[in-house]
Amino acid sequence: MAKKDKQKEKLSELGEKIVKDIDKNKNPSITIPIRALTNIEFNEKTKTLELGKKTASRYFFNVAHAKKFLQTVEIASIIKKELIDTGKHEHLRGVFYITKRTIPETNINIVDDQTESDKIIEDLEVITGLSREQLHVSANKMGSLVGNIIIEDSGDTINCAKLGKGGYSIPSITDELSFKKVNAKYVLYMEKAAIFERLSEDKFWQKNNAILVTSQGQTTRGIRRLLQRLAEEENLPIYVLCDGDIYGAYIYSVVKYGSIALAHASERLTIPSVKYVGITMEDVVKYDLKKHLIKLDEKDLARIKQVSQYDWFKDNKAWQKQFKMMKEFNGKVEIQALATKGVSFISEKYLPEKIKNKEFID
Amino acid sequence: MAKKDKQKEKLSELGEKIVKDIDKNKNPSITIPIRALTNIEFNEKTKTLELGKKTASRYFFNVAHAKKFLQTVEIASIIKKELIDTGKHEHLRGVFYITKRTIPETNINIVDDQTESDKIIEDLEVITGLSREQLHVSANKMGSLVGNIIIEDSGDTINCAKLGKGGYSIPSITDELSFKKVNAKYVLYMEKAAIFERLSEDKFWQKNNAILVTSQGQTTRGIRRLLQRLAEEENLPIYVLCDGDIYGAYIYSVVKYGSIALAHASERLTIPSVKYVGITMEDVVKYDLKKHLIKLDEKDLARIKQVSQYDWFKDNKAWQKQFKMMKEFNGKVEIQALATKGVSFISEKYLPEKIKNKEFID
Repeated sequence: MAKKDKQKEKLSELGEKIVKDIDKNKNPSITIPIRALTNIEFNEKTKTLELGKKTASRYFFNVAHAKKFLQTVEIASIIKKELIDTGKHEHLRGVFYITKRTIPETNINIVDDQTESDKIIEDLEVITGLSREQLHVSANKMGSLVGNIIIEDSGDTINCAKLGKGGYSIPSITDELSFKKVNAKYVLYMEKAAIFERLSEDKFWQKNNAILVTSQGQTTRGIRRLLQRLAEEENLPIYVLCDGDIYGAYIYSVVKYGSIALAHASERLTIPSVKYVGITMEDVVKYDLKKHLIKLDEKDLARIKQVSQYDWFKDNKAWQKQFKMMKEFNGKVEIQALATKGVSFISEKYLPEKIKNKEFID
Repeated sequence: MAKKDKQKEKLSELGEKIVKDIDKNKNPSITIPIRALTNIEFNEKTKTLELGKKTASRYFFNVAHAKKFLQTVEIASIIKKELIDTGKHEHLRGVFYITKRTIPETNINIVDDQTESDKIIEDLEVITGLSREQLHVSANKMGSLVGNIIIEDSGDTINCAKLGKGGYSIPSITDELSFKKVNAKYVLYMEKAAIFERLSEDKFWQKNNAILVTSQGQTTRGIRRLLQRLAEEENLPIYVLCDGDIYGAYIYSVVKYGSIALAHASERLTIPSVKYVGITMEDVVKYDLKKHLIKLDEKDLARIKQVSQYDWFKDNKAWQKQFKMMKEFNGKVEIQALATKGVSFISEKYLPEKIKNKEFID
């Protein structure tokens, strides 16, 4: 069955179930897996945060449910007719505006606020088992890619080794890209665009046969999915390069294990094989960066305490050692501190050596 | 003279002047145009915010000046030796780390905080007349481009009509790109990446023979310079698409006239020919968007008052009318509100009609 048909079918099933309820004179209902902390668990086997088995039902004839029931059916219908049937994609904000109209013969809006439509779209993900991306709903586009990979995007064949310093601008939905040819040993992902530009200018990806990805901000779903597909479909190791601080550790953990907010989408986003390449507290000693440590403040310390107790970190000796050293040094270190060793120290020495010697944290 | 030589020469002149002062037993000094509101004026003729003629001198033998004098010479030297001579570029943050070391035989750092090195880099811009980009110092990379243009970036020839939905990821420094072939009637710039993805998916640029640029956030210097070069070197009209609110008006005005913070760089950034394509308050009426107006809050109203009194807006009748209508409607409107007319209404009707009928605000 074609991908598009599968998507349509899942949404049609939802509608057909409601019609059946009506035909049987039953109170129409929709069953939804619960997306709350009480139903989120860390699966020790798959090493991902996932939803448990608890569900709830939403009834049409129930004053507390009726509006959400209507919103669910309405947005499912918009997604099927306006987006999947036409092959178009719409941003979360656009779906909100399309949904925001009055219920006929009333003054009541179907939705008043984007948080309402966003939540319904998440509900539809868990109801249908389709990701938001498969439902053709996008969020903000972010990030760039350069390296030894040929990608097909909307019929265009793009050689990402021939895109200058700038690179390929990653779309918000990466599920629909195809990898035509990959000639790389690994993928290096970094949040900081400044580091991407350093490595891109130095042609790090060419010298080391790699693919570079940056998000220029938070790791979006589109980038997580892209990295996951490169790991799963192309068997590429994914290395994460972050600042040596608790926020870097958390960014890494989201890519690897998932996040509480998106536990329902873990299967399509997490990458258990991903490894952390730096910066580590050992690097601070090895590369004499102590004088470039930034003193921890109360917020940093509170966050270290919190993150170190997360299920996915609490029994991880290597990470616990990092957290301990952060507290002992009472400091954090930025990737850019490596520039004190020379502008291209990071691309000529730091990264090639660490990757060659497999000095990773898992 | 090659571009690189000119850059080196300007920095060498700064050093040679200091050596001359020393040879003559004079107190070494550096003359710097003042970058403060008292020395910023709106040039009615060129329609740009620019620096006036006031200068200040920084002396080595002056306890109040000595540290800044040292910082200026040190950073000028780093830029010449580490960046321009090697052809490399470094981010503002990296320049800070490279500069941040102790003055020999003291415990005093040359700089303690990035704001210090950032300010010195701005000083060097006005001292040498070279832009930060020409000094090889970058800021965060942002933004994407698609459309009928072939760009050369670092030896790669990039056809931006063959980059799928994603597009070309714009580097932080766009001065060094070359335009190999341009086959477009205009450039459409929008801040919102979501709108870029809508227009890119609809192949708006192909149907309308255009180039699309988004910044995915604030309009960076790199994007302003890129738009300016497309306007000046390729004689392309630049149209700006923003939300119908005071912030949209301000974004437009920065692209067109410049900003107070970057008045010293106006010449290389402002685009007097740029035009505003929407969204306007008239569109709210014409396209029946009144029910999608978002109520103004106190912050909006205060900002309308402030912006409407700026030199570059205060005698502009078309913009004063916009501000008046915003207050009358007591509302603002987002571009995405057009999605209520259909997902592709913006690309199939709104923009083609407005551009065809030249319904711009100047």
